[in-house]
Amino acid sequence: MSTHMEKFFEPESIAIVGASATPHKPGNDVIRNILANGYEGKLYLVNPKGGEILGIKVHRAVSDLPEGIDLAVVILPARANPRAVRDCASRGIKAIVLAAGGFAEVDADGESLQEELKEAIRETGVRVLGPNTSGHTSTPHRFTSSFFPLGALPKGPISYIAQTGNFATHTMRYIKSAEHFGVARVAGLGNKIDLDECDILEYYARDPETKAICVYLESFKRPRLFLDLAGKVTRKKPVILLKGGSSAGGSRAAVAHTAALASDDRIIEGALRQAGICRIHKYSHLFLAAKALAMMPLPEGNRVSFLAPSGAMLVCLTDFCEKHLSLRVPPVEEETRARLQEISPPFIRMRNPVDIWASATVHGVAYGYREGMEAVLKDPNIDAVVPVLLLTDETGVPSLDFIVELAEKYPQKPIYVTSSGQKKHMEAAKDFLEPRGVPTFPLIEDPFEILDILCRCRKALETPWRPR
Amino acid sequence: MSTHMEKFFEPESIAIVGASATPHKPGNDVIRNILANGYEGKLYLVNPKGGEILGIKVHRAVSDLPEGIDLAVVILPARANPRAVRDCASRGIKAIVLAAGGFAEVDADGESLQEELKEAIRETGVRVLGPNTSGHTSTPHRFTSSFFPLGALPKGPISYIAQTGNFATHTMRYIKSAEHFGVARVAGLGNKIDLDECDILEYYARDPETKAICVYLESFKRPRLFLDLAGKVTRKKPVILLKGGSSAGGSRAAVAHTAALASDDRIIEGALRQAGICRIHKYSHLFLAAKALAMMPLPEGNRVSFLAPSGAMLVCLTDFCEKHLSLRVPPVEEETRARLQEISPPFIRMRNPVDIWASATVHGVAYGYREGMEAVLKDPNIDAVVPVLLLTDETGVPSLDFIVELAEKYPQKPIYVTSSGQKKHMEAAKDFLEPRGVPTFPLIEDPFEILDILCRCRKALETPWRPR
Repeated sequence: MSTHMEKFFEPESIAIVGASATPHKPGNDVIRNILANGYEGKLYLVNPKGGEILGIKVHRAVSDLPEGIDLAVVILPARANPRAVRDCASRGIKAIVLAAGGFAEVDADGESLQEELKEAIRETGVRVLGPNTSGHTSTPHRFTSSFFPLGALPKGPISYIAQTGNFATHTMRYIKSAEHFGVARVAGLGNKIDLDECDILEYYARDPETKAICVYLESFKRPRLFLDLAGKVTRKKPVILLKGGSSAGGSRAAVAHTAALASDDRIIEGALRQAGICRIHKYSHLFLAAKALAMMPLPEGNRVSFLAPSGAMLVCLTDFCEKHLSLRVPPVEEETRARLQEISPPFIRMRNPVDIWASATVHGVAYGYREGMEAVLKDPNIDAVVPVLLLTDETGVPSLDFIVELAEKYPQKPIYVTSSGQKKHMEAAKDFLEPRGVPTFPLIEDPFEILDILCRCRKALETPWRPR
Repeated sequence: MSTHMEKFFEPESIAIVGASATPHKPGNDVIRNILANGYEGKLYLVNPKGGEILGIKVHRAVSDLPEGIDLAVVILPARANPRAVRDCASRGIKAIVLAAGGFAEVDADGESLQEELKEAIRETGVRVLGPNTSGHTSTPHRFTSSFFPLGALPKGPISYIAQTGNFATHTMRYIKSAEHFGVARVAGLGNKIDLDECDILEYYARDPETKAICVYLESFKRPRLFLDLAGKVTRKKPVILLKGGSSAGGSRAAVAHTAALASDDRIIEGALRQAGICRIHKYSHLFLAAKALAMMPLPEGNRVSFLAPSGAMLVCLTDFCEKHLSLRVPPVEEETRARLQEISPPFIRMRNPVDIWASATVHGVAYGYREGMEAVLKDPNIDAVVPVLLLTDETGVPSLDFIVELAEKYPQKPIYVTSSGQKKHMEAAKDFLEPRGVPTFPLIEDPFEILDILCRCRKALETPWRPR
């Protein structure tokens, strides 16, 4: 299949067709993005005016370019796209990103223009991402075709397939400024005139830089192939999917967004489950689950221990895990229980979940949480540990190095952190822990919602794939 | 019933029995808390050492106090509590808070001590909150009996009943430092030896300072009475309840926490619904829903409009509202639609939900959101509006005064704000909007989860109560 995918994600040379000297124009921002990411291949610019942009020579026409450039990023008005495709093809370019909107997603004129574009692609045999895409990203190859000013993008193990431009625009801005994890590849599918989710998924499946795959789709272009590919890849790498348009209202919104047609959601549900795809229902989980996957191992199972400075939180979170999620909060070994009792004043009978209030307030927050976390991390009945940190001036705010050390010492068990107390300390904890590889979550229920998702991913990894 | 409740929540004089001169001791922190809140009644301190604490004269014994003080807060070891109750009673004190733990929640010795305490209460006829309570709060009367150092507490319309100390300790710290809303009354029930949720609920029902009631319970001491009281109050004021111990594991945790016995959750579910109580399942919603109730009117119904800078968010949030919650995202009037179209470039066909990306990026974020929000706020088909703000350097970060102005101009329709983009701008938006009465939420799904809860409260308000 996708013999040209490497040219999209690992290009040794790139041409920007429609490069602009004007700051804040897409044709300028895309160059700045590529430079900011430290792209090490050859970069060619094309604009009829010639001259230089940002110190790089500008070619007046595609026909002036050398033969065989790997990838062209075309940032021209919709009407100019069919011609640009033919021009690029004639210089031996086989991989093309088309940024312009104004095609089938808009009106009848756009539809006929899209037909014209299809014809150009068919005739020339090039592969096209888009049109109407805000771009794609490949941090291992230090570049992005995004024209939204993003600067340097953090490198990491998560790859996205997105039937939306968000993961090249404001959601990427959010991830970069708030979530401290990095991405490997990102593909904004746009109108899917040629490349679709199957091509990208097939590439991510064999991509050593991609450890987990997060997908946002409003439609399946080749559903049968997608499920077959997914059925194989989910046995090796987690695949998390948010399918937009699963309600009647959502379907109508999806038609307005990407002209995606509704499918019967119940049929989809079963097929996705069979393929081992972990379906999610919150947009926010596309980055919270990604963060957890980027920073921590997959949990081996659904048996969770948590420590909280509050009996009420223990009760409510246990209810939440067992009644609303598929997590279990099991008893721990007697040895573990004895150790928990040892670190606590005697008036609380320690168990899982762990009431750490007394230990933390009597012996100090760092002592209580460190010893308590280590006890349950060691326990063979526990697959993941969630400390709900107590962070107030009154109880003392310790250095959180001990959590980073525990994460290093027990690399097979995920630790997700959340907290209660003063906002400033909670934010400082996030800013300290996440760059050191320990994920944190805003509300105390969030880490459990994410654990539940990743337990489903684990299950798929362990279930043999039986093609239909 | 609770003829003494005013003495608890509106005392004109308070005695601290067990006042301490040592900073950071509960018997000292409670005095500081009362002073920090500007209590205007008379404050008496009792400690056998006499002298002065924080400039206030200390009486050596309860018997030295004047007759008829309204409320005593006893901060003495468990063993000293029965005697303290009798001493207070003999000075005409009829309302007593007992802070000490170490009773039935601990062991057999504690149980027999609790029996002794019960006997003292029965014989003297005093009313007792606790024991094992971290205190109660009454901001209209500018005091708290909490011994966790909290400083001045923000006054507002929300009252809590809590079978946990959190709402006098770290959760109150969180609310105070992060959530910008105020409370009226808070009661930590402790072991409920005398006063229970029914006494407090009955007082809140007739309390003009209480606009809405949030409850955390692990057991119902008088279930039938509680449901009867709730059935009446929910027709006037929203009652939101988190019931801890609804799962098998949660029940076990509740026994460890407050010795609460499990009930059949299915029976509870139906009875609570019939009484118009809005049941929630996340601890975090105890303060997120409270914030929404404190700052905004109840929605008139479940018809929501939202504006987002992303087609994908519109699709996913519509799915979330219609498939996972009981909210609707209805079409708007043609006049509204025309106005939305007017403020947007023509290449997006505007509707509800509102794709504000083009308008905000072409005409400016403030213009797009202000005009778009006003259009849907005016629409008779819409009960609540959620803007998902676009906050990035690249698209420009406007002053958010316009949202405060819209909230004032349309006081009958709740506005809940969330956002996408850069973390620092999202935090600044929260810190700007919430002190001005507009609630914000961390993840884009959160405002919808809260709206769903408050729509259920509205429904209860409108359903006539039929006692069983």
